[in-house]
Amino acid sequence: MNQLKRLTSLQSAPISPAVSAVEDRLRGLFRAWAYVETRFDVLQPARDYMPHELDRIYTVSDAADGALALRPDFTSLVAREAATVGQAVVRPLRRCYAGCAFRRPERAGEHRREIHQAGVELIGASGELADAEILTLASEGLETIGFDRAQIHLGHVGFVHALLRSSDLTDRVETSVCDLLARHDRPGLASLLRGLSIPAQTAKALVSMLDLVGTDDVLDRARSLTDEPDALRALDQLETVFNLLDHSDLPTPVILDLTEVRDRSYYTGIRFEGFDAASGFPVLRGGRYDQLLGQFGADEPAVGCAFEVDRIASSYVENDRRGGEAVLIGFSPLQWPEALATARGLRAQGNRVILNVTSLDSADLTQYEAAHRIDRIVVLETDDAISTGGGPR
Amino acid sequence: MNQLKRLTSLQSAPISPAVSAVEDRLRGLFRAWAYVETRFDVLQPARDYMPHELDRIYTVSDAADGALALRPDFTSLVAREAATVGQAVVRPLRRCYAGCAFRRPERAGEHRREIHQAGVELIGASGELADAEILTLASEGLETIGFDRAQIHLGHVGFVHALLRSSDLTDRVETSVCDLLARHDRPGLASLLRGLSIPAQTAKALVSMLDLVGTDDVLDRARSLTDEPDALRALDQLETVFNLLDHSDLPTPVILDLTEVRDRSYYTGIRFEGFDAASGFPVLRGGRYDQLLGQFGADEPAVGCAFEVDRIASSYVENDRRGGEAVLIGFSPLQWPEALATARGLRAQGNRVILNVTSLDSADLTQYEAAHRIDRIVVLETDDAISTGGGPR
Repeated sequence: MNQLKRLTSLQSAPISPAVSAVEDRLRGLFRAWAYVETRFDVLQPARDYMPHELDRIYTVSDAADGALALRPDFTSLVAREAATVGQAVVRPLRRCYAGCAFRRPERAGEHRREIHQAGVELIGASGELADAEILTLASEGLETIGFDRAQIHLGHVGFVHALLRSSDLTDRVETSVCDLLARHDRPGLASLLRGLSIPAQTAKALVSMLDLVGTDDVLDRARSLTDEPDALRALDQLETVFNLLDHSDLPTPVILDLTEVRDRSYYTGIRFEGFDAASGFPVLRGGRYDQLLGQFGADEPAVGCAFEVDRIASSYVENDRRGGEAVLIGFSPLQWPEALATARGLRAQGNRVILNVTSLDSADLTQYEAAHRIDRIVVLETDDAISTGGGPR
Repeated sequence: MNQLKRLTSLQSAPISPAVSAVEDRLRGLFRAWAYVETRFDVLQPARDYMPHELDRIYTVSDAADGALALRPDFTSLVAREAATVGQAVVRPLRRCYAGCAFRRPERAGEHRREIHQAGVELIGASGELADAEILTLASEGLETIGFDRAQIHLGHVGFVHALLRSSDLTDRVETSVCDLLARHDRPGLASLLRGLSIPAQTAKALVSMLDLVGTDDVLDRARSLTDEPDALRALDQLETVFNLLDHSDLPTPVILDLTEVRDRSYYTGIRFEGFDAASGFPVLRGGRYDQLLGQFGADEPAVGCAFEVDRIASSYVENDRRGGEAVLIGFSPLQWPEALATARGLRAQGNRVILNVTSLDSADLTQYEAAHRIDRIVVLETDDAISTGGGPR
């Protein structure tokens, strides 16, 4: 066997334990909200994805199934499952997931191949109460994982949709406008708009959107920018959701932000992101997507959100040990049955129990205790009485 | 968007919830034994695997990293990690994992592409106590997942190694002999041995191995078949381990079985499988593998076992609901803050709480209650008093 060949890998380093800890905490919250966890195979039929999607998807093939795609996301799998079970399962459906999605890097140096996500989808529920449920869950999620200085920015893509509709722009230009809005790039946006033949009022309204961030008068200022009925309807919906949240003492504050317009072709209503105050990075995103289920033959509304587990894990501090102590049991080989019985009792009380099967001596034990964070050593006496405490040091 | 294209997939059905339930139970047990869970990326550098291994491994490539392999197992990743951390972490290391490994089918119709496994590895520990620890953990694992009629068959590959050594057979023939032994194919074994030029005593001993299954006199009968020192040493080790287990009141019985010789080139000492009495299928396998770590530059002993989570899940019956009730809260939109506060209190007590955000009416609620297994409906009164019980039916 070629040893050198086996030792070249640095990428095989384990995933941070914080990823599991964050997933576990979010899973617990999702479950408390009665969301049912759904797990999917990593390998999905490649024919289930559009050609343009396949550009960023890893594919493999085998003799049994032909082309397979490494799942690039979870929401489309949840949507497909909801469509497959059909209306046989009474709506709304509450579904959650936690795991990794796969994206093929387009350039060397771009290394986010495996993206850990955890999220919820509320399927078959329209209306502001459903929106408020997902936002409240998002807010509690950020609290659950210890982000006590996070903030959720809440917008509604219906507003920008309505403003842009009359201007007859190409999809590519609309995407550029929304990207510049989302990035708060005022000079870039002004420059782009100068080159377009759109009504002056629309251009002014788009630039003014950059200031529609806050709480108090954002909605009034937004209403003053347009008289498009769809834009005003979007603001009414946003106001209803915001008022519901405003009266419910959320652990993570929510502010209005009309520049929440990324992925506008996917979202159809409210759209939000949660930001970590320390890093400024978004750690969660979500919104209403009433068009997606239709692609799978089930035309029904849906709203959901996804937590960016990798990003959260990178600043996550485990602030409690999950109960119990780490106990090491010292014994002589003849005492194996007694050692096992003692371990069983301690484990039943929630402790993590290590049997000293390699007969480490005192010096070894001291090192071992430090390296493996042993809280307590229990040494079985030769007359089978148990001594706890200092151990054999 | 092409709807038909999106609806062709049956393979995207969700994974059985029993897989998660089995994983959770085993994780809890591993943790109680102080095994530290390690997670690895699915995509590993393809150069870390041997050419002959790559035949059964899915590979992908991208601009950033070149060829990547979908991990085909966990033990080699754990071994590589142990070698990478080096002796800086005091031995023994206790590591566990749960997740899916990927194998490329060689033929159409062969569909086990994603194999869910959960296992433990005890690294840097030689000796019979370490062997006994893994076997005890295996036995408790089968109990944990409710296999109360399972049985563990325990052998030692050193015995067959010693018998075969003097016969100068090719590796391929040795593998055939071991496969026939493991399958208990007496006519096949006799026929193969007749065609080989090996000593009559060896041929007789190999055929007699088929009867070396049981408890009482298996070791004595085995000793009568050979005077090879290595074979006798293997039997001594096996006896020591078996005696340790015999005195420790295991929940799953262990019997001796010298035909436990599959994967003899991988294992170096004890080797065992756990069988489900109902299906007869193996649901767990393990043993000592003192050669593997050497391939990664860390020459040290190791013993471990892996549970076949898919197979276990297919006959797993969740025999307890994980605490708490499923409670549905009915409320009018104006009562949102009260509904949230009520839900929060019920969730803090371990319940799963559904908010009736879609204002299901009485008929809907009855259906919903049945479909989603609601234990209790709580309807907020308009004067904010809470009524529990029958709800709005």
